[in-house]
Amino acid sequence: MSSIWGNNIKISIFGESHGTAIGAIIDGLPEGQKIDFNYINIQMKRRLPNRDDTTSNRQENDNYEFLSGIFNNTTTGAPICAIIKNQNASHKDYDEIKNVLRPGHADFTAKVRYKNFNDFRGGGHLSGRLTAPIVLFGTVCRQILETKGIKVAAHIYSIKDVLDKPFNPINIPDNLINKLSTQLFPVIMPQVESLMKDEIKKAKLNNDSVGGTVECAIVGLPAGIGNPIFNNIESVLSSIIFSIPAIKGIEFGNGFNSSHMYGSDNNDEFFNDNGNIKTKTNNHGGILGGISSGMPIVFKIAVKPTPSIAKEQNTINLLNLKNTKIKISGRHDPCIVSRIAPVIEAATSIAIINLLSEVNML
Amino acid sequence: MSSIWGNNIKISIFGESHGTAIGAIIDGLPEGQKIDFNYINIQMKRRLPNRDDTTSNRQENDNYEFLSGIFNNTTTGAPICAIIKNQNASHKDYDEIKNVLRPGHADFTAKVRYKNFNDFRGGGHLSGRLTAPIVLFGTVCRQILETKGIKVAAHIYSIKDVLDKPFNPINIPDNLINKLSTQLFPVIMPQVESLMKDEIKKAKLNNDSVGGTVECAIVGLPAGIGNPIFNNIESVLSSIIFSIPAIKGIEFGNGFNSSHMYGSDNNDEFFNDNGNIKTKTNNHGGILGGISSGMPIVFKIAVKPTPSIAKEQNTINLLNLKNTKIKISGRHDPCIVSRIAPVIEAATSIAIINLLSEVNML
Amino acid sequence: MSSIWGNNIKISIFGESHGTAIGAIIDGLPEGQKIDFNYINIQMKRRLPNRDDTTSNRQENDNYEFLSGIFNNTTTGAPICAIIKNQNASHKDYDEIKNVLRPGHADFTAKVRYKNFNDFRGGGHLSGRLTAPIVLFGTVCRQILETKGIKVAAHIYSIKDVLDKPFNPINIPDNLINKLSTQLFPVIMPQVESLMKDEIKKAKLNNDSVGGTVECAIVGLPAGIGNPIFNNIESVLSSIIFSIPAIKGIEFGNGFNSSHMYGSDNNDEFFNDNGNIKTKTNNHGGILGGISSGMPIVFKIAVKPTPSIAKEQNTINLLNLKNTKIKISGRHDPCIVSRIAPVIEAATSIAIINLLSEVNML
Amino acid sequence: MSSIWGNNIKISIFGESHGTAIGAIIDGLPEGQKIDFNYINIQMKRRLPNRDDTTSNRQENDNYEFLSGIFNNTTTGAPICAIIKNQNASHKDYDEIKNVLRPGHADFTAKVRYKNFNDFRGGGHLSGRLTAPIVLFGTVCRQILETKGIKVAAHIYSIKDVLDKPFNPINIPDNLINKLSTQLFPVIMPQVESLMKDEIKKAKLNNDSVGGTVECAIVGLPAGIGNPIFNNIESVLSSIIFSIPAIKGIEFGNGFNSSHMYGSDNNDEFFNDNGNIKTKTNNHGGILGGISSGMPIVFKIAVKPTPSIAKEQNTINLLNLKNTKIKISGRHDPCIVSRIAPVIEAATSIAIINLLSEVNML
Repeated sequence: MSSIWGNNIKISIFGESHGTAIGAIIDGLPEGQKIDFNYINIQMKRRLPNRDDTTSNRQENDNYEFLSGIFNNTTTGAPICAIIKNQNASHKDYDEIKNVLRPGHADFTAKVRYKNFNDFRGGGHLSGRLTAPIVLFGTVCRQILETKGIKVAAHIYSIKDVLDKPFNPINIPDNLINKLSTQLFPVIMPQVESLMKDEIKKAKLNNDSVGGTVECAIVGLPAGIGNPIFNNIESVLSSIIFSIPAIKGIEFGNGFNSSHMYGSDNNDEFFNDNGNIKTKTNNHGGILGGISSGMPIVFKIAVKPTPSIAKEQNTINLLNLKNTKIKISGRHDPCIVSRIAPVIEAATSIAIINLLSEVNML
Repeated sequence: MSSIWGNNIKISIFGESHGTAIGAIIDGLPEGQKIDFNYINIQMKRRLPNRDDTTSNRQENDNYEFLSGIFNNTTTGAPICAIIKNQNASHKDYDEIKNVLRPGHADFTAKVRYKNFNDFRGGGHLSGRLTAPIVLFGTVCRQILETKGIKVAAHIYSIKDVLDKPFNPINIPDNLINKLSTQLFPVIMPQVESLMKDEIKKAKLNNDSVGGTVECAIVGLPAGIGNPIFNNIESVLSSIIFSIPAIKGIEFGNGFNSSHMYGSDNNDEFFNDNGNIKTKTNNHGGILGGISSGMPIVFKIAVKPTPSIAKEQNTINLLNLKNTKIKISGRHDPCIVSRIAPVIEAATSIAIINLLSEVNML
Repeated sequence: MSSIWGNNIKISIFGESHGTAIGAIIDGLPEGQKIDFNYINIQMKRRLPNRDDTTSNRQENDNYEFLSGIFNNTTTGAPICAIIKNQNASHKDYDEIKNVLRPGHADFTAKVRYKNFNDFRGGGHLSGRLTAPIVLFGTVCRQILETKGIKVAAHIYSIKDVLDKPFNPINIPDNLINKLSTQLFPVIMPQVESLMKDEIKKAKLNNDSVGGTVECAIVGLPAGIGNPIFNNIESVLSSIIFSIPAIKGIEFGNGFNSSHMYGSDNNDEFFNDNGNIKTKTNNHGGILGGISSGMPIVFKIAVKPTPSIAKEQNTINLLNLKNTKIKISGRHDPCIVSRIAPVIEAATSIAIINLLSEVNML
Repeated sequence: MSSIWGNNIKISIFGESHGTAIGAIIDGLPEGQKIDFNYINIQMKRRLPNRDDTTSNRQENDNYEFLSGIFNNTTTGAPICAIIKNQNASHKDYDEIKNVLRPGHADFTAKVRYKNFNDFRGGGHLSGRLTAPIVLFGTVCRQILETKGIKVAAHIYSIKDVLDKPFNPINIPDNLINKLSTQLFPVIMPQVESLMKDEIKKAKLNNDSVGGTVECAIVGLPAGIGNPIFNNIESVLSSIIFSIPAIKGIEFGNGFNSSHMYGSDNNDEFFNDNGNIKTKTNNHGGILGGISSGMPIVFKIAVKPTPSIAKEQNTINLLNLKNTKIKISGRHDPCIVSRIAPVIEAATSIAIINLLSEVNML
C-alpha cells in the first residue's frame, strides 16, 4: 500500500511519469475553504524544471484540473480530486535503456517489487513527477494553515559545501518566510545563490550532478499539537518527507549535532516571555516529547545528487546479466535541491493539517 | 491517535511510567510461530537500567506476562497482549517538581496537549519506559525474521566525539551481527567501549549527560520489499524510529554525506555477482526508490543527551510563571545510547515485519 | 472521512453528480492481472439507466478512462485511477428546487453536514452516480476473483410483494451464476420478470416508486477466509454494501428468520462429502464466527423505494422554513433494484478481494 | 486484522475464553472525562450469565482492572487499557469435544483460518466472552455521549414469535430510555417479559435454544453527523454490530419492510416543528444519505438461536472425518438475546463516539 498517506486527512496519489495523467485525491479537508488558484500556480511553477541552466530542460507545464470537491472556488467537504495530464513525454529516451540498470535509480528494485509488470517508462510510478500532486494539494493545505496564522518555509541550506545561513530558530521573521516561499532558488543570504549555482553548473559541465540540503521551518504552530509515541511530529513529518525521492536524511532542531553535546548545552531553558512560555534557545527544534512547544519547528533534510548523469557508469544489462556501460543522455537535473524546496513545504503542510485535525483544530 | 502503529501488523501501546502497568497488543502476526522466551529475556535485559555506573540505578526488572495470543508457546494468530507491571516507582521524586518545567522534557508540551489531565508522574505516558513493550514485541517479530534469514543489529557508533568503526555496508558478517545483538554495550571495535564509557562517566561526574549515535543494519532482506512514494522503507522505518524518545535525526546509507557529493561518486554501480545483482558500493543504504535492493539496509540515528541532569538549570514554575532553578535529582541515565540500541533493533524488526506482510512474505 | 474503504486494498472515491467527473483510485491490487475491458463494459451497462420504461430516461453512457496503474492492458501494481466524465447534466432540474427539501433525500442532512458548502446539484457527492466507479473497480476485482474460481452473482429477490425463487444455498450452479451476472433484470425464475416489471410500471403510472430486495451469493470462496470479532465477513460486507444508496437492511443466511427458530432447526450439521467438510443445510449463509465455511455465502439486502417521485408531497422550504409542496419532475427511476444488483456484485467483489489479501491469497 | 475497530477512536481487543485475561485498549478518547464506575458495573452485570434459568449458569464476575489512561478517576487522553481476568474456566468441558465439530460454531472455520494453531478452548478468541470489553469500553463512551445529551437504549423486540411493542420512532421518551438501560431483561411492555421467558424455558426444557431480535435507538444525536458513501452511519454501525457473535441481520428504520412499500408511503415528509426541521414519520430511521437527520436513529438486529444445545446433533469428528453425534453438555445459554442487548448499546456508543470525533464534536 504505497499511495495513501494520513490519518484524519488522507491523500491518495496515482500516476506514472509517461502515463495518461498523474494526480491525487485528498479527503477530509474542511468545507468552506476558499481556494487561491494563483497561490497554487506560483508553487507549481517553483517545482517545474526548465527555468535556467541549473535544471532539466524537460518542458512541462503541469496544468492541473480539479475534478471534484470544489464548488464556487470553495471546498465542499467532499473529496477533492485533481489531475495533471502528462505531455511532452519522450518515450524514446527510455525505451532503449529499458534493460540497462541506471545506477542510483529504482529500475531494478521496481522490477523485482512488481515482477516486471511495472510501467518502466521514465521510472513509471516511481518518478519525481509524482511530487507535482503533492505540491498541488500541499498548497491547498498551506492556504488553510495560513488562515490560522501558521506558515511554512524552506530554503536551500547547502549545495555541496556552499552553505546558506541557517534559520535563527528562535525568531524567524514573517518577511523572510514570505520572501522564501515564492523564490525559485530560495536562500536566506542572497550572495550564496550564485556560488551555489556555480557548483551546479560545474557538476553539469562534468556530466555529473550534485547534492545539497534544505532547511524548513514551521512558524506559528501553537504548543500542544502532535502525539507522544507513535504519530509524534517527528514521525509524521519524516514519514511524508521521505516520500519525496532523493531524500536520504532528516534531523530536527540540533539533530545530529546534539549527539556530540552535553545535556546542559543541548537543553533549552524555559522562560516567561510576557506571559508566554518560551525557551531561550531552540535546540529541540520546536518539538518536545513529539509535541509542539510553540517555538518554531525546524528541520533539515539531505538530498542526494540526482542519479541521472551523462557521465559513463558501469552497470549490467538485465537481458544477459552482463557488464555494460551507461551514459544517461536524457534531459535531467544536475541538481534537484531547488525544485525540492517547494515540495518539502507542501508535504510539511499536509502533515501539519493532519496533526491539527487530530486536535479538532481544523 | 498516538498509540497504534503499522499497516498489516499493528502494535497498540499503552501505559504510564508510574501507573499500574505498561504493555501492548500486536495484531496480525502469523500463527504457528514458536516463541523463544529466553531470547526475549536477553533483549529485555539489554534495555534495563542499573547495569553499571553509565546507566541509571533505577531498579526495574520488566517482568512481562503474555495474556493472550500464545498457546503452547506458539502464536495462535489472535492478537497478542502482554503487560509489564510497574514497580519500584518513586512517586516522591516527581511530585515535588510537578510544576517546575524540566528543560528538554515534555512536561510543558504534554500539559498543553492534554489540558492538564495527563498523568504527569515520571512523564506518564511520555516516558522512555514505553520502549519496554517495543523491545518485547519487537523481539517476537525479530524471531520471525530470523526464521526467514533476516537479521537486525545495531551498535553504538559514537558517544560524543568518540567513534566506533562503521559497518562495512557491502559485507556485514553474521558473527558480528550475532555478537552485537547480545551485548549490553554493543560496539564493533572492542577498544572504544572504555573510551566511550569514560565520556559518559565524565558527563555524570559533572552532573551532566551526553549524546551519541547508533548505526543499525538489516541483513538478508531480499530485494523488492517496500513501496514507492508513501510507505517506502525510509518512511516506515523513520516513522517508528522517531517514536523512540530522544532521537532527533536519521539518515540512510550515505545520508547527509551524500548532500556533499557528486552523483558519480554517490551512485552505486551494479554488477553481476555470480548471478546475483549487487552493487559495488552501498551508498544507497540498501534502498532505491523506497524499495530494498538486496544490499544491507544501513541507517544511523542521532540520540540527544538525556535531558534529566543534576546540574542546575533555569526554568519557570507553572504555578506563578516565575523564573526558578531546577536540579533534577532522581535516578537518571547520564547517557541513554546503549539502552536505545536494542530498542532500535526491536522497532526495526516491527517495521520489517510490516513490510514483509505487504508482499505476502509472512 | 467518507471516501476511502478497505484495509489491504483501498478504494478512494470522488466526484459529484453534476461536477466535471467522478472516479476512484484503487491501491493494492496485485500486478500482472490482465484486464478484460469487455467484461467491464457489460457490467457498467447493467448499472446504466434508460434501458426500458422501468428505469430513468436520463441518458448517460459512463465512458470511463483509466489514467494509471494499467500498462499493456495489465495491472502494474501501482494505484489504478479511472475517471468517468459527467455529461447530459441537466442543471435546470435541480436549481429550482434547491431550497425545497425532497422527502427521503439527503438534501437536508448534507446541508447540515457540510454547512451549506456542499455541491447540491443532483445530490452532489451524495448521488447514486457514485456507484459507477464501484462497478468499474468492482468488476476489476471480480475478474481477479474469477481467476481463483470465486464467483459472485446477485438476483432480484423481490419487487414489492412479487418474489423470485431464492438461491438454493447448498448448491448454486455455475450456469445460473453466469446467466445472472449478465442480465439487465436478473431473476432466477424467468416468469417473475414481467410480474415484477408490472409492479414497477404501476408505481410509475401513479407517479410513485417501489422497493425490493436483492439476494447475492459468493460461490467458491474457500473455508478459512475472514476474521473473528472486527473485520469478520459480515462486518466487511455490510460496511461496503450500506455504502450503496437506498439500502436499509442486510441479512446473512437465515437472517431475520433465524430469530424465530430453535437452535436445533437453525444449526447446520456437518458431514463428510467425499473428504470435504460440508454442512447439510446452509442457514449460516457460509459464515461461522465471521469466517467462511466453504459453503456459499448468501445474503439479502433491502432496497427502499426511490425517494424521487412525481407525486405531490409535503415538505418545507429552507429559505423561510415554511410548509410547501413538491413534485419531483426530473428523470428518475421508479425502481432502482435492477440497477443495484450489479453494484452489489461489484461491492461484494471489492470486499472479498480485501479479505483474500489479508490471508495472503492475492 | 481482526482486533482493531474505529477511525479516530480505535478499540483494540484481545483475549481468549480460557486464557489468562481478556481486555482491550481504547485510544483517542478525549482527556478530562470523569468515569462513573458504578455505571460500568451496572452494564457489565447486565451482560453476565447466571442470573436466572433463562441464562447459562456459568459463574463469572467480570472484575475488570484499568491499567492506564485514567488518573484521578478521569481520562488523561492517553490510551486506556483494561483487562478482565478469566476465572471459573472449566477446561474439561471443552477438551473432550476438541475434534468433534459443534454445529453452528466456529470450531471448523477457526481451525482452517489459523491452521490448527488457534486456542480452541471454549472457542478461544472467537468467544462471546470478548463482548465483555466491548461493554466495558462502550459504557465509557456512553458516559461521554450522555454529557452531550445523546442516549442509547435497546430492548428485546422479539423472542421467537413473541413481540414487544416497537419504539415509537418519532418520540422515544427519556424515562423509557433510562428504564431500559438498566434492566436485565429490557422490554417496553412489561407483560411480554414472562411470555418471552416462557419461550426460552420451553426451548431449554427441550435441550434446545431460541433466537430473537433487539431494537436499538439513539436519541439526541444532532443532524449532520456521519458520512456519505463509505463510513456512513449504517456502514459504521453495522460494521461494529456484526462483530457481536450470533447476529445475522440488521435493518435501519423501516428496513426490509420498506422493500414492500411505495415511495409515497415510505418517504418521510419534512415539517417545521417550532423552528426545528423534523419529519412527520421516521421510516428513514434517523439516517438520510448516511448522515443523521436529527430524528431518533432506530435499528433492529436479528440474533440466531445459540448454537450450543444439549440436543443430539449429527456432525463429524475431525480426527477421522467420520460421522458422529454430539450433545453439548456445558453450561450454555438457551437464549442470548437479553445478554446481547447491553452489548448492542455499548457497541453503538463506540460507533457514535467515532462519528462525533470526525466532526470535531468530542
